[in-house]
Amino acid sequence: MANTITGAILIGDDSLDNGRRNLQAVDPGTGAKLEPNFAEAGAAEVEQACALAWAAFDGYRETSLEKRALFLEAIGAQIMALGQPLVDRAVAETGLPAARIEGERARTVGQLQLFAQVVRAGEFLDVRIDSALPQRKPLPRPDLRLRQIALGPVAVFGSSNFPLAFSVAGGDTASALAAGCPVVVKGHPAHPGTGELIGRAIQAAARACGMPAGVFSLLLGGIETGALLVADPRIKAVGFTGSCGGGLALMDISTKRREPIPVFAEMSSINPVFLFPGALAARAQAIGEGFVGSLTLGAGQFCTNPGVVVALRSPDLDRFVQAASAALGGSVPGPMLTPGIHQAFERGVNAMASQAGVQVQARGQTGAGPNRGQAALFLTDAKNFLAQEALQHEVFGAASVVVVCDDVAEMRAVAEGVEGQLTTTLHLEPADYQAARELIPVLERKSGRILANEWPTGVEVAHAMVHGGPYPATSDSRFTSVGTLAIRRFLRPVSYQSLPVDLLPESLRPENLGQLPRLEDGVRLLPR
Amino acid sequence: MANTITGAILIGDDSLDNGRRNLQAVDPGTGAKLEPNFAEAGAAEVEQACALAWAAFDGYRETSLEKRALFLEAIGAQIMALGQPLVDRAVAETGLPAARIEGERARTVGQLQLFAQVVRAGEFLDVRIDSALPQRKPLPRPDLRLRQIALGPVAVFGSSNFPLAFSVAGGDTASALAAGCPVVVKGHPAHPGTGELIGRAIQAAARACGMPAGVFSLLLGGIETGALLVADPRIKAVGFTGSCGGGLALMDISTKRREPIPVFAEMSSINPVFLFPGALAARAQAIGEGFVGSLTLGAGQFCTNPGVVVALRSPDLDRFVQAASAALGGSVPGPMLTPGIHQAFERGVNAMASQAGVQVQARGQTGAGPNRGQAALFLTDAKNFLAQEALQHEVFGAASVVVVCDDVAEMRAVAEGVEGQLTTTLHLEPADYQAARELIPVLERKSGRILANEWPTGVEVAHAMVHGGPYPATSDSRFTSVGTLAIRRFLRPVSYQSLPVDLLPESLRPENLGQLPRLEDGVRLLPR
Repeated sequence: MANTITGAILIGDDSLDNGRRNLQAVDPGTGAKLEPNFAEAGAAEVEQACALAWAAFDGYRETSLEKRALFLEAIGAQIMALGQPLVDRAVAETGLPAARIEGERARTVGQLQLFAQVVRAGEFLDVRIDSALPQRKPLPRPDLRLRQIALGPVAVFGSSNFPLAFSVAGGDTASALAAGCPVVVKGHPAHPGTGELIGRAIQAAARACGMPAGVFSLLLGGIETGALLVADPRIKAVGFTGSCGGGLALMDISTKRREPIPVFAEMSSINPVFLFPGALAARAQAIGEGFVGSLTLGAGQFCTNPGVVVALRSPDLDRFVQAASAALGGSVPGPMLTPGIHQAFERGVNAMASQAGVQVQARGQTGAGPNRGQAALFLTDAKNFLAQEALQHEVFGAASVVVVCDDVAEMRAVAEGVEGQLTTTLHLEPADYQAARELIPVLERKSGRILANEWPTGVEVAHAMVHGGPYPATSDSRFTSVGTLAIRRFLRPVSYQSLPVDLLPESLRPENLGQLPRLEDGVRLLPR
Repeated sequence: MANTITGAILIGDDSLDNGRRNLQAVDPGTGAKLEPNFAEAGAAEVEQACALAWAAFDGYRETSLEKRALFLEAIGAQIMALGQPLVDRAVAETGLPAARIEGERARTVGQLQLFAQVVRAGEFLDVRIDSALPQRKPLPRPDLRLRQIALGPVAVFGSSNFPLAFSVAGGDTASALAAGCPVVVKGHPAHPGTGELIGRAIQAAARACGMPAGVFSLLLGGIETGALLVADPRIKAVGFTGSCGGGLALMDISTKRREPIPVFAEMSSINPVFLFPGALAARAQAIGEGFVGSLTLGAGQFCTNPGVVVALRSPDLDRFVQAASAALGGSVPGPMLTPGIHQAFERGVNAMASQAGVQVQARGQTGAGPNRGQAALFLTDAKNFLAQEALQHEVFGAASVVVVCDDVAEMRAVAEGVEGQLTTTLHLEPADYQAARELIPVLERKSGRILANEWPTGVEVAHAMVHGGPYPATSDSRFTSVGTLAIRRFLRPVSYQSLPVDLLPESLRPENLGQLPRLEDGVRLLPR
């Protein structure tokens, strides 16, 4: 039954019971172990999943757009059909509140529906026709037709902090399936029951839609399982969200393959927030409170958590710091996602506090129960921040540092000094526009998304979203893992020259062209 | 003066005379050294060129589309204005016939003009707007606007075999400049005089168009110069065409940088040709002659040279082999591009001839003069070809191997067995369509371009062209180095969330949207 959590490994249409059963989820809010014990996938299961995915690939990538869109929608419907047990299990495994899980479920299903629209619209095929010019001198031009095709089976690594929206049926899976790639998920061991429920929902959708069995598998396991998966020659791309260490390890495995493959790893970001004088003069208190709201949301466990605030020394900045300190001081933490994440947070906060020239400005409440991360706000100056690289390292959780600058040149130096970022946020008023205008070119070079007068947590799934950015925010700044552009990670162009019509793929045949957006002899044409 | 070859290093608007003067071109047709001696760039010149490129970047990437298009067209005009001395020098440095150089010049100028059109059309900006939905429940949607921006200064490695179309102002340079990236070229030491003439034409165009000086530099040198360039932190992407060894070395340097960068390396391909029974029955003789024409074109020095022919054992195949052998036997070679390339060709041919189970089927004429590569046609069977990996290595020059298959299953096994390719060619008649239909999914997975009843040499610069393919044909199959899609290598998306209109880039402001193709709330709209 779809709602049963058995601890089995899901390979294609099957659920297998042949792994070692030594992985159990923990409720981070209580420390209690959750039943059942889960089977970890080893080399045999990786082999089996990759073989099935490979066997499914040529068929799945040529499914009609409508059939593929229906499959994505069916996955969403099956996830909704899991009902309350999914929410309960995800809450138990992550310590996140039910409202957050319900919101994330809506986002996950919406994401699948959005990619169904993308598939139906057919723009991702990037159809291009250059007609034959047999009379051209000195040489005739051949008939050239281009489309994008799927790269091949994709390994998706579920992230700990989005048990639905960036895990088994999350953004990487949705965009890879939309592109026509079978997916083998390496499930995150922190939420194995949630993963199994979602995995069974995908299996049910694949079955109902007549998809080849190998279009999806879910392998639970640790670093070793993931390494085997990325090294498998039938895997042709990787989607990963997690730590810098994890992402770099996968990039390294790819580099050492006989055939290196694209690894899109979303890894690390401290998401600078620049507070301009006009904004601080107008609303230091509100900005301080808004900042702490973003910082402590979900126990600070967002890739886009605002980890550094940059502003000019001034009485208005003092007011911001006071307001933020007060709000932070009253903040009562929920449990963090896992004991390991909580321990890493404590280590990170202690390391930050011990850096020279860093002052602990405020701490949150300790909270009751295990795995509570006590929020932390630090203060330092720009010279110190720029001199100590350790201050730029992400502390995953509700920790942030205010960097006080003596002048605009120092603000710019901080902007230039940080590594690549997912986001940069500006708080400003019209009086600040001129200063902001000079900073924006730097921020564009450094980040995938620039926000004004809002907070970076909360990533809209949309056409114009970028959840990406220069290294080490991601491994390749030319792509995004959230939003409809995410599909491009898993596509490659193929050109067909003078192929007889009978042998052309459906999307490039003259009789079908009118149904698709296309570039014909350099002219953009839309469907009839 | 634009037409003077001085041997200087071109950095930004300057020509510097401070390198070691120890590089001289050789006329490969006669072995004679050509004046003058050229200065090689060292660490100081790499530093200077990268600093200038970095200084130019923020300004150049925001030039208006019209201004940037005019710059690309001006480069083309300045190249044409070089007149006969350019053709003469390129002929002397490469040994290629004047007609080929003139054709390549037309292609180079046409390529710049095509990218000017691409810039004006503005599709590469990929403008996307998701309007704010302040009333949306449970959360409002912010205003999101996306555009693609240039990656940063690009290192371009000129190739030996296209002294104009894939060298100093070739496809990599044209697409990078179109994207808004300054370019630092590492010029190929085989044609330094041609390179300097072209480099001065770009300088003249930049000057006339009021571009920042650092938009272009040309550094001549060897492996060490190239390594310094790719390691420079201000270089943000690499375009390379050349050997597998060279490409892999650049990928390795990128991986070891503090910030790894995209390296697009076009490296190695043997471009399989599949001859189907119906086609051989209908026109074995013509196919054999056409094949040798493609194989020996430009002394076989094309990335898309047909290095392996796959067909079923039959009397018709014997007729093809006889026709090809006869044509090859009469072929008189021109000089190869450099003594080094000629020596590598001879080594490759000897290695192939010494492989077990490989028969030397035919050799071309020896030719008169130095550096003539004697064309070679080998014969083997599918089992032997698949068992010996060395038979799949590219021999750069006019050498090819006919792989005889016992049945269709063996043809498919050869298709599956080869590594990634730039092209695959089919020769077929309607009677062959069913067999071809079964093979095409394999070929799509293996190659960037599939041709029917034509030859892979000759790469059209067009919207629907792909000069790319799975590794090791290129380092990243998601891109192409020829055709208008090549611009995507050098762009990354940036999303602007709720930015005040005053701070938005020109292309995303409401008043300018109507002039650009865009995706507005998921609906594709074209310019008024």
